[in-house]
Amino acid sequence: MEKGKTYTIKKYVSVTSSINHSHFNTVAASITNVTAAYVRGFDALHEEHVAAWKAIWANADVVIKGDQAAQQAIRFNIFHLYQTYTGKNPKLNIGPKGFTGEKYGGATYWDTEAYCIPFYLKTAPSKIARQLLKYRYFQLDKAIENAEKLGFTDGAALYPMVTMNGEECHNEWEITFEEIHRNGAIAFAIYNYVRHTGDFDYVSKYGIHVLTAIARFWVQRFNWSEDKKKFVMLGVTGPNEYENNINNNWYTNFLARWCIQYALECNDRLEKNGVSLTAKEREQWIHVTDNVYFPLLEGTNVYLQQDGFMDKVMLNAADLPDSERPINQHWSWDRILRSVFIKQADVLQGIYLFEDRFSEDEIRENFNFYEPKTVHESSLSPCIHSILAARIGDEECAYALYLRTSRLDLDDYNHEVSEGLHITSMAGTWMSIVEGMAGVRVIDGNLSIRPMIPTKWNSYSFQIFFKEQPVHIHVSTKGLEMTNLGADSLDFSVIDNKYTLAAGEKQMITLH
Amino acid sequence: MEKGKTYTIKKYVSVTSSINHSHFNTVAASITNVTAAYVRGFDALHEEHVAAWKAIWANADVVIKGDQAAQQAIRFNIFHLYQTYTGKNPKLNIGPKGFTGEKYGGATYWDTEAYCIPFYLKTAPSKIARQLLKYRYFQLDKAIENAEKLGFTDGAALYPMVTMNGEECHNEWEITFEEIHRNGAIAFAIYNYVRHTGDFDYVSKYGIHVLTAIARFWVQRFNWSEDKKKFVMLGVTGPNEYENNINNNWYTNFLARWCIQYALECNDRLEKNGVSLTAKEREQWIHVTDNVYFPLLEGTNVYLQQDGFMDKVMLNAADLPDSERPINQHWSWDRILRSVFIKQADVLQGIYLFEDRFSEDEIRENFNFYEPKTVHESSLSPCIHSILAARIGDEECAYALYLRTSRLDLDDYNHEVSEGLHITSMAGTWMSIVEGMAGVRVIDGNLSIRPMIPTKWNSYSFQIFFKEQPVHIHVSTKGLEMTNLGADSLDFSVIDNKYTLAAGEKQMITLH
Repeated sequence: MEKGKTYTIKKYVSVTSSINHSHFNTVAASITNVTAAYVRGFDALHEEHVAAWKAIWANADVVIKGDQAAQQAIRFNIFHLYQTYTGKNPKLNIGPKGFTGEKYGGATYWDTEAYCIPFYLKTAPSKIARQLLKYRYFQLDKAIENAEKLGFTDGAALYPMVTMNGEECHNEWEITFEEIHRNGAIAFAIYNYVRHTGDFDYVSKYGIHVLTAIARFWVQRFNWSEDKKKFVMLGVTGPNEYENNINNNWYTNFLARWCIQYALECNDRLEKNGVSLTAKEREQWIHVTDNVYFPLLEGTNVYLQQDGFMDKVMLNAADLPDSERPINQHWSWDRILRSVFIKQADVLQGIYLFEDRFSEDEIRENFNFYEPKTVHESSLSPCIHSILAARIGDEECAYALYLRTSRLDLDDYNHEVSEGLHITSMAGTWMSIVEGMAGVRVIDGNLSIRPMIPTKWNSYSFQIFFKEQPVHIHVSTKGLEMTNLGADSLDFSVIDNKYTLAAGEKQMITLH
Repeated sequence: MEKGKTYTIKKYVSVTSSINHSHFNTVAASITNVTAAYVRGFDALHEEHVAAWKAIWANADVVIKGDQAAQQAIRFNIFHLYQTYTGKNPKLNIGPKGFTGEKYGGATYWDTEAYCIPFYLKTAPSKIARQLLKYRYFQLDKAIENAEKLGFTDGAALYPMVTMNGEECHNEWEITFEEIHRNGAIAFAIYNYVRHTGDFDYVSKYGIHVLTAIARFWVQRFNWSEDKKKFVMLGVTGPNEYENNINNNWYTNFLARWCIQYALECNDRLEKNGVSLTAKEREQWIHVTDNVYFPLLEGTNVYLQQDGFMDKVMLNAADLPDSERPINQHWSWDRILRSVFIKQADVLQGIYLFEDRFSEDEIRENFNFYEPKTVHESSLSPCIHSILAARIGDEECAYALYLRTSRLDLDDYNHEVSEGLHITSMAGTWMSIVEGMAGVRVIDGNLSIRPMIPTKWNSYSFQIFFKEQPVHIHVSTKGLEMTNLGADSLDFSVIDNKYTLAAGEKQMITLH
């Protein structure tokens, strides 16, 4: 090399894995790839790279004006989500830390279904989310095997809490055997996919098998209580992992009943294409769903987290001295379990999932009951609360909870960034803007928007996919501007008014 | 040595341990001991050994006529108990496997208080059982430290579930943090000691500190339920370890309330000698004990094992196929937890401990409710059931359950003798004869006997210590023969009749 001259060294690297190649061919494939890359050359590859990211940002960006910290945070989160997962291969999933840390071992959790799928459904064409659904479809046999080990029969499936290859790889009974609501999240993801994409074909080809096996699990997992004359579910752990081995977790009971109902609906719709349910099985499913027990707080609209919840000492998180928080680093496990404090409020998670079944007053009553008791010691917690706070018009609370999630890693609130970033909860942050601030929902197959804007912001905007059509949503202090970027006309509602936009059309809607 | 002649080789061995000698002196002490032994000679040592065992058998033997298998079994058990523990040193305790196997690591469990202390109280002078009580007294500081780690204050103590030196050495939260009834067994052992020996001096010197610290734990562990307007105890594991993290385990609530009451009674009796309770503390203790919640089965006298018990599928152990037993080797943990099946029935354990507070009808009703649901997958279970079966006159069941425990190791029922013998449950076997068949009790400070005899037996007899005096009890098909071997006169009752025997006197009492 000539002295004093600057050289650019280009290095071509190909990463291949035995997941995609036979063990024997892994190295050879790598050489083939890297040779092809070299032949195409750095500039062409770089252009492709730039184009790929441009396409991602065109679909997924959220632009916030007037709040630089919020803008930086949401882009940081979106970047990391697409850095982690782009949906190329149904054998891959999203670890809670992505590739940024070794904690959780890169394994798959229910986080994917509960938080990441809503993100990819709206920010990418449907095939990306479909890959995540297929990941579970391909592991159905293992889930059936897992349920058999626990004494279930007739093709009932229990998906693992944590997995690499479909087998359970968590090691605590209160999680593996009892935190079974994950089965519901997996079924709900299929439903969520269908309502966002309109693609029922996925159900008839793949989803129906997963839905049916999950429904069979729930039907067997409920048991008849002669005492209550209802079906009860004993010994579970809900998403609020600060309770173990509880009876009649409202969230799990509600989700389980819904799973059976949805599986039945899909089977009926598919008729002969569906998994053939016997008449007896069908009857039993209906008998169970007609008679599920739900714990309620008498004289109120509050759904009780579990049986016996009201025996606890009723305190608020605000009563906890700072020196004892987070309680999971200061209290013994039994003390956490019997306290009223909630890691993430699963009744609110249930209301979030099935929001259109609850009146605004009911949502408010439950939010006001549970939010003060929630210590948010799961990174997945604040976003759901933020979305519900927005739903009931508590703008201040919604914004405060949004901030809590969005800059979690950038500002290293919990002094744990060295363990890796909270990749899956980053999707929750995005949800707090799109579903929270903008109030985007799919209700009865239609797009519904109920926007608000935090005082500090001038405007925010983003694009979503709805039934494969891109829609641009811009919210400012002046109002909501909707742009139909798709090829078909778009029906949608804003609060209680209905609108239709032709392809390419834009409409400004003033808000009060 | 001369060819063809037989020689006896005598080997003198001394075992010393750093528990009793400084590390530096352990070897020297061993040499001193072994030299002294050599000087005294084999014959003298052998005579001493024989005399020591003769003295043990004179006090502890149970003679059964007409049932060789039963006779062999009970002697096998008594031998192993005294082979394991003779009460020489309060630093020692009784591991569930004694010195016969490595399982349980030689550690101390609540078995000692619940099963072994009743055995040593009746088969040996009071100093032997007192050593076992002192073992816990010397570990009180560690028990207070343990409770502090769990958030308790003001000198509350939680004794460990498993220990070598006073520190908890079990590793599962559902046991260490929640199986807290062991605290009650430790308090009850003190009460049991006092009523058998009449020695309240132990309480004033040592026991009061243990009792007060345990009472303080329970007072803090209960919490007020605004819903029930009662004190409840959430998140415990009872002696029936086939339930975890349950609310209001009847046994634990009952025992906890009793502990506070007894500690209060002892403090009052000792007045200034006692640990000084403040007026406020005294008031709080009374407030709690006056308002403890107990789960009941409405319309019956059945005490419910825990809140929500009646939500389970009501099956009997007889409904289980043999191929699934023991369930702890065939079922997943969650399935065991939510099933109705009971490892050892803790409601019956509670009724056993406080039998004089329950009518025969109440005992029968609870026995008939719980016994069919009990799988007896703890070696400590059948003896208590056997004793209660005898109490309610169910001779057949009492005998069947006795057989189940007494030959457990001799016949290796569970194919696990290679792991070691069930030393602590051997004391339970002895209890099934003395407390079960013979119905020996101490009620209101007096000896009470309510004997029965299994059809197969011609007679059985044994000696017990009561208030330091030996009493011989002989039960045959002809009746009960009582012999007062002590120096003072003896008052006792048989069923509902009262008797007095002068020192050295014997009386035959015909039974109907």
